[in-house]
Amino acid sequence: MALEKNGNGTTKSKHIVLTSHPNRFGPKPIPIHWGASDPLKRGAIIGTLTNSAQRNVIGSHSGAYGIYRALAVASGQLQADHRADLTNTAPADLVGPHAAWFDPQKIVSLDPFGALVGELYASLYETGYDIRPTIAVTQAHINMPELVEAIAKGRLQVDGKIMKQGGDLVVTKAAIEPVWYLPGIAQRLGVTESDLRRALFEQTGGMFPELVTRHDLHVFLPPIGGATVYVVGDPAAITDPTTPLAVRVHDECNGSDVFGSDICTCRPYLAHGIEACVQTAQEGGAGVIVYWRKEGRALGEVTKFLVYNARKRQEGGDRADAYFARTECVAGVQDMRFQELMPDVLHWLGITRIDRFISMSNMKYDAVIQSGIEIVERVPIPQDLIPLDAQVEIEAKKAAGYYSNGAVLSALGLAGVKGRDLSE
Amino acid sequence: MALEKNGNGTTKSKHIVLTSHPNRFGPKPIPIHWGASDPLKRGAIIGTLTNSAQRNVIGSHSGAYGIYRALAVASGQLQADHRADLTNTAPADLVGPHAAWFDPQKIVSLDPFGALVGELYASLYETGYDIRPTIAVTQAHINMPELVEAIAKGRLQVDGKIMKQGGDLVVTKAAIEPVWYLPGIAQRLGVTESDLRRALFEQTGGMFPELVTRHDLHVFLPPIGGATVYVVGDPAAITDPTTPLAVRVHDECNGSDVFGSDICTCRPYLAHGIEACVQTAQEGGAGVIVYWRKEGRALGEVTKFLVYNARKRQEGGDRADAYFARTECVAGVQDMRFQELMPDVLHWLGITRIDRFISMSNMKYDAVIQSGIEIVERVPIPQDLIPLDAQVEIEAKKAAGYYSNGAVLSALGLAGVKGRDLSE
Repeated sequence: MALEKNGNGTTKSKHIVLTSHPNRFGPKPIPIHWGASDPLKRGAIIGTLTNSAQRNVIGSHSGAYGIYRALAVASGQLQADHRADLTNTAPADLVGPHAAWFDPQKIVSLDPFGALVGELYASLYETGYDIRPTIAVTQAHINMPELVEAIAKGRLQVDGKIMKQGGDLVVTKAAIEPVWYLPGIAQRLGVTESDLRRALFEQTGGMFPELVTRHDLHVFLPPIGGATVYVVGDPAAITDPTTPLAVRVHDECNGSDVFGSDICTCRPYLAHGIEACVQTAQEGGAGVIVYWRKEGRALGEVTKFLVYNARKRQEGGDRADAYFARTECVAGVQDMRFQELMPDVLHWLGITRIDRFISMSNMKYDAVIQSGIEIVERVPIPQDLIPLDAQVEIEAKKAAGYYSNGAVLSALGLAGVKGRDLSE
Repeated sequence: MALEKNGNGTTKSKHIVLTSHPNRFGPKPIPIHWGASDPLKRGAIIGTLTNSAQRNVIGSHSGAYGIYRALAVASGQLQADHRADLTNTAPADLVGPHAAWFDPQKIVSLDPFGALVGELYASLYETGYDIRPTIAVTQAHINMPELVEAIAKGRLQVDGKIMKQGGDLVVTKAAIEPVWYLPGIAQRLGVTESDLRRALFEQTGGMFPELVTRHDLHVFLPPIGGATVYVVGDPAAITDPTTPLAVRVHDECNGSDVFGSDICTCRPYLAHGIEACVQTAQEGGAGVIVYWRKEGRALGEVTKFLVYNARKRQEGGDRADAYFARTECVAGVQDMRFQELMPDVLHWLGITRIDRFISMSNMKYDAVIQSGIEIVERVPIPQDLIPLDAQVEIEAKKAAGYYSNGAVLSALGLAGVKGRDLSE
């Protein structure tokens, strides 16, 4: 094998290893026993790119940002063998563990030990293993105009600890990268692991041949966005059965969440969810917002905008009775968010009961209930928070099974709920 | 070859083709002549997954959302051979073309024809090719609390056409997926195409072996987030040399953009940029916001939160003189956004001069100028929009070269700019 010295004196192969097959003679990577309660027996997730013999997963860390890392290495700005210095990065809170961490079926799409690798695998790290956190937990103050308005209108109170003067809200937050245990994902979706692996390979245009060649590796770091968790109030209250818990699970909608587009209810419902979290925390409980990077029902924003045009231009204009059909024409499905995987993050937090579930989605509700978490009350979006042009969406969703405490429209009624045309 | 009938009567190979090599005997895919002005000579971007002989790119459409598409196919919800019905999806505006579209060096990271494939390649589509838009253009009304406040305070006026009663802002918006012409990307970064391909393969844990085996395919659809463009005012004014243009190029920061975290200036500066866009549009010009999916300087949010903890906990606390060092410890670089590729979207819009550039970033400024676009004025963030805890960031950036019309602090001054500790 041709070797060359690189800049900092280490040697590097000139050969490109196309697909790494299990080493027949070399050292075996640390095995992963998913669901084991002893972190060392469970095994660290090792997605290093510097020592391929140590890798025990398919894919790499940081999701799709690995592409940018590649540009940084190609252009000489990042040393390919850089190993993260984890000094002072340990979680600010939310450390667990909870019973669900050790149930191999409760959590299959994230690593429950992901925030604690610096402590749990210190011995491996010290011997040179390139181990990286897949979860990071920090604390922050956030300030949203909607919360400031809620204070001004008397719906929220400043208490000086959770909600500070001026509307600053104190939160603990966690960023979570997906870590997929493929046998568990397959089981959750009701397919064989082999069919899942094949689809993941083929439907991405051939990403990661190891999905179909390395059946000895069962953990996949998919290059998709993960989730961010915001906790309001005392994190200990999340798992305390005597205190109330409010939860909103929100799927990214950049056009509304950031820019306030009036075609949907995303940001208004998110703000309402945070308001409910603050109220519940001030009652001595806690509030949890989970923000998932699943733009446009996980179809992406290009598809979303194509559907907007098709809705606005179809014969009869944008109307609730044709709301889902237009998405299906363009995308082949109405929705691709797979809420079946979503409850994992709730189990990571140790949640077993949600007192106020700030969502009307029957898909989210069903997934949470089926995962064994109790939901006491469902809170729909207040009517006065729904933008005029978003009536099409909300009435279509209610007719399709979304939770509502009001009337659900008939087919004729749905046809009468119309949105704005393009250029209006 | 073993064939089986699937549900809808078509046949499907049971074999998995691991890495598709150029077909020696079969029909060749449509060649791509990057930069050609005739769309048919340039060639359609074909990332179909149903007919591998027709593919002329590496990767697949919808970026990372291809992973969710794989779940939909695996679970039987989406037919693997679904082809998008593009009826009524054509762009609502912004159709071009502009001179830069036909300069193979001006645009290398998106397909300038990407919004028009339904029209330009209708003949191919009708003969069965699975051709998909990589850009979608629609129109919307947006409403942000900051803009409503700007109206209340008299900084913005309601004109009934651009800014409507109640603060509804009329915009044209475009979602753009990355389409990378690898020789052009390599040239932009100053590396060989071969080194770029190798890094993209190796630094992603072996994603897409075709990057290193298929040197006949030069176009790559990377599974990363793209950009969203918001245009305020008459899109024709963007390229009219007699009317003013305001531009902000904004990189995603979910914690601030959506939740209003006070550790940085992202959302306040974005809102200020939109305000400048409205003012410029009302003067008869136009305003452009480009929103890039590059969370945490394209390092991802887990890395970002790890860095927050390291900043807050380091000896001496969070301070401007150690701002960049903490990112470098964890990530190996200070920044991974590669602004070198960013101006492509401005060239797609036909921009040649920016009157008001709402950004202090020297990296963005340099990239825009070097791409041949003139910048008349740079507009820093107003001091009263900077959250208290974000002083650490803004002072560190100014000392590192960010544009400012005020004083830049000395090393001693930087050490004195301190942020909040964790748990404060």
